[in-house]
Amino acid sequence: MSFKEVEQSFLDYVRKIVNYNEANSVMYWDLRTGAPKNSVAQRSIVISEISSEIFKMTTSDVMAHYLTTLEEAIGNNIISFETEQTVKEMRRQYDRNTKIPAEEYREYIKLQTMAESVWSEAKNENDFKKYQPYLEQIIEYKKRFVEYLGYKECKYDTYLDQYEPGMTVKELDQVFQTVRERIVPLVQAIANTGKNFEKEEMTQFVSKQKQREICESLLETLQYNFSAGRLDETAHPFATSLNLGDVRVTTKFHENNFDKAIFSTIHECGHALYEQNISTGLAGLPICCGASLGIHESQSLFFEKMIGKSYAFWSKNYNRLQEQLEGKLDDVSLDDFYKAINHSKPSFIRIEADELTYPLHVMLRYEIEKELLEGTIEVKDLPEIWNEKMSEYIGIRPSNDQEGVLQDVHWSMGYFGYFPTYALGAMYAAQIKNSMVKDIPNFDELVAKNEFEEILQWLKANIHQHGQTKTPKVLLRDVTGEELNVQYYIDYLENKFSALYDLAEVEQ
Amino acid sequence: MSFKEVEQSFLDYVRKIVNYNEANSVMYWDLRTGAPKNSVAQRSIVISEISSEIFKMTTSDVMAHYLTTLEEAIGNNIISFETEQTVKEMRRQYDRNTKIPAEEYREYIKLQTMAESVWSEAKNENDFKKYQPYLEQIIEYKKRFVEYLGYKECKYDTYLDQYEPGMTVKELDQVFQTVRERIVPLVQAIANTGKNFEKEEMTQFVSKQKQREICESLLETLQYNFSAGRLDETAHPFATSLNLGDVRVTTKFHENNFDKAIFSTIHECGHALYEQNISTGLAGLPICCGASLGIHESQSLFFEKMIGKSYAFWSKNYNRLQEQLEGKLDDVSLDDFYKAINHSKPSFIRIEADELTYPLHVMLRYEIEKELLEGTIEVKDLPEIWNEKMSEYIGIRPSNDQEGVLQDVHWSMGYFGYFPTYALGAMYAAQIKNSMVKDIPNFDELVAKNEFEEILQWLKANIHQHGQTKTPKVLLRDVTGEELNVQYYIDYLENKFSALYDLAEVEQ
Repeated sequence: MSFKEVEQSFLDYVRKIVNYNEANSVMYWDLRTGAPKNSVAQRSIVISEISSEIFKMTTSDVMAHYLTTLEEAIGNNIISFETEQTVKEMRRQYDRNTKIPAEEYREYIKLQTMAESVWSEAKNENDFKKYQPYLEQIIEYKKRFVEYLGYKECKYDTYLDQYEPGMTVKELDQVFQTVRERIVPLVQAIANTGKNFEKEEMTQFVSKQKQREICESLLETLQYNFSAGRLDETAHPFATSLNLGDVRVTTKFHENNFDKAIFSTIHECGHALYEQNISTGLAGLPICCGASLGIHESQSLFFEKMIGKSYAFWSKNYNRLQEQLEGKLDDVSLDDFYKAINHSKPSFIRIEADELTYPLHVMLRYEIEKELLEGTIEVKDLPEIWNEKMSEYIGIRPSNDQEGVLQDVHWSMGYFGYFPTYALGAMYAAQIKNSMVKDIPNFDELVAKNEFEEILQWLKANIHQHGQTKTPKVLLRDVTGEELNVQYYIDYLENKFSALYDLAEVEQ
Repeated sequence: MSFKEVEQSFLDYVRKIVNYNEANSVMYWDLRTGAPKNSVAQRSIVISEISSEIFKMTTSDVMAHYLTTLEEAIGNNIISFETEQTVKEMRRQYDRNTKIPAEEYREYIKLQTMAESVWSEAKNENDFKKYQPYLEQIIEYKKRFVEYLGYKECKYDTYLDQYEPGMTVKELDQVFQTVRERIVPLVQAIANTGKNFEKEEMTQFVSKQKQREICESLLETLQYNFSAGRLDETAHPFATSLNLGDVRVTTKFHENNFDKAIFSTIHECGHALYEQNISTGLAGLPICCGASLGIHESQSLFFEKMIGKSYAFWSKNYNRLQEQLEGKLDDVSLDDFYKAINHSKPSFIRIEADELTYPLHVMLRYEIEKELLEGTIEVKDLPEIWNEKMSEYIGIRPSNDQEGVLQDVHWSMGYFGYFPTYALGAMYAAQIKNSMVKDIPNFDELVAKNEFEEILQWLKANIHQHGQTKTPKVLLRDVTGEELNVQYYIDYLENKFSALYDLAEVEQ
């Protein structure tokens, strides 16, 4: 077979994997948006049946043969650019899935399932001791796996790289140090003002149907394409790309906190716009997705925080919202609404944290994960370590583990190296926006007119269309001309929150 | 391998096929209940990818080996009853899918796709000539295939058997002759009364949200299990069993015909109750479904016509409906409502036909299909033949082919032998009900109290639980003690419509 023939055959094989993934994604979406209770047990079997076929295909001898053959052709202009990138992605998956002995991996998956269920009980019962032995075992596996997977400078790098290719402890340590030095005093300064921007009017009852209408109108305003997507209700909002013509968003309607649905919808809209605008040339390939979790999060946060929580946006859209809410916000001025949706207040729970304190929640987890993997701290000491760090960074100390170390499911699922992508997203977003406004100096003006065409075209041209053909590092350099530079993020937060809370210049 | 080991291995293999079918069914459901427009092209590829895997598995050498091995064990009490039935079903599928040469079948599938799309255009343009050559080719294939598939007395029997195992032209000819002799005069007698029971109030605007509430309350009343199902909107209502814990119904909300949603919901509810009540011992097997299309339709029609359109049912539920409709039916008495939902009036379109004229629409199609396959009529003459028969049976003559021979998609899809199951369902339903009331003499009383427990238990014990472990013929004999006896159906229709239209005794 010629390289061209191998390429074609490889692409057919890979498309089959993508198709199977699509089937599973439809079933996942369905499970999370209203599948009946009794469907779950059998549906999970179907999903796992198809997952195991996908696993077989990604780790098969056939795949190994394709990869070694096509890797020879890389860089020689024999196979297409898209194929090259696909080969690289499938190589990543192949290595990750074959380096760990299958039997050991199966045991680990079983442990995960157990750990997740024990975590849930332990959280409900506020009983860390119950969870401790499971987390200890998870970490033992993680330590063992990293030996199979290999690492250069630092074990944790290997896991970071799974979610954010190219990211290292060395780089992140520096980034978080700056964040710590600059944001912790800002949080403190805001606490010292004693100001509280929360508004009781925001907790009035708003029916789910009404919230749905509001969210749909916002999605339309932001040019989410309903011909290639839909909005549904779920317990934990997410966006999912089933195929290039089907990128769905979900939200949760809290009847006494309509703003939650609004901002989770705009957040997921950011994710969805990314996936809806990937080049059609990548359709059906495994690289038809975001560059990384961090870059994906940069798009959701750009829309949620930099557009959705901006003064410009609501200067145009607040009237409509007031009308939609039929008088419920008539006594809240635009200024007060803007302050209310941006208020910052130390809190225990990460997923409820505001824009300013959020990165501190992530930092705390990052530091703990790193040290657990290196073996410099022990699981049994986590509650104390957690509470100490909360106190140091955010200024409040959890009174129990439910609102402390037991709050997240991630570790039970073995997601080590995942949390940092949330913070990286915010940093990328600030850096990307800094570049964008050089090209679109009237950014605020466009936002204030609901004119998003130019902004979206810029994002599409610079980020969205490329899908996963660029690594996050290459993408960021191409878009902004430099490596990750956390200064843009710090500046953005300092400017925004100093103005909001009318702070005297904080120490630069 | 022992028989027991082969049995286990066969069941694992078959369950995999069922799991793949479930994945496809979820995607079909999704496509028909709100998947975004742009999702369709790629989703169809996924469905066809998985279908082709299913086809491979059902026709594989592995399957052939399982079947021949296990067929030796049938009747020897070595393998379970469920396995025996599963072997029989998989043998049916294997034979059907292997007897026709693969290349020829692929060509036929391509033709179907073309024919369906040409049919749609031809119908819109009212141009039978355009469609004619495609239908001619379809019939040529059908004639050829039946030679591969084999037949005993009559070619058409082979196709009837695909949808209604055991049904023959010999039996159906007799049945339809009786229907013709007894129903045609009844239709004529009703036309002669000049009575029109339609009510303008039934065409008032009712919002989709309100119709959804009404339909949900009816489903609850009829003990549809929402923990194992859900109700969604679609263009052409259907019920679908994804697994034993997930049997979904759909309906269409016509804003100016709320009654359509009500009765299509009750109809699909009948299908769904059947599937929700199959024995859990059959879960995950290909025989965890209805005995045949005809038996399935007997359940949907039993609920739609014999409960949903009964006086007893509305004597209990009409008040609630009036309340739900907030005054819109206040001027319509229960008696007038009952008459309106049961009015009979000759019409051109089968899917809009009333209970009485419906079997005549089916009979016409049955006769045409049979003769096309035998070659005693030609496609080019169909419009004239169709219109003649309409005039003879139903008393009205279509003025164009759109409301005549071009109205149904079925033939484009090669569904020959399918239409009769609609009429058989109604006949089975009447015969089954006749047996049920011997066991439950206070049937009407229970319906008039919304007490469906006993009725459902009877259906579950006699029909639902058995899934596809009994053929329709065996099931009917077991339930009613006799073969199909169309007299029950005729009696039911004559009694109901004579009373409704206050007819003098029609000739018995």
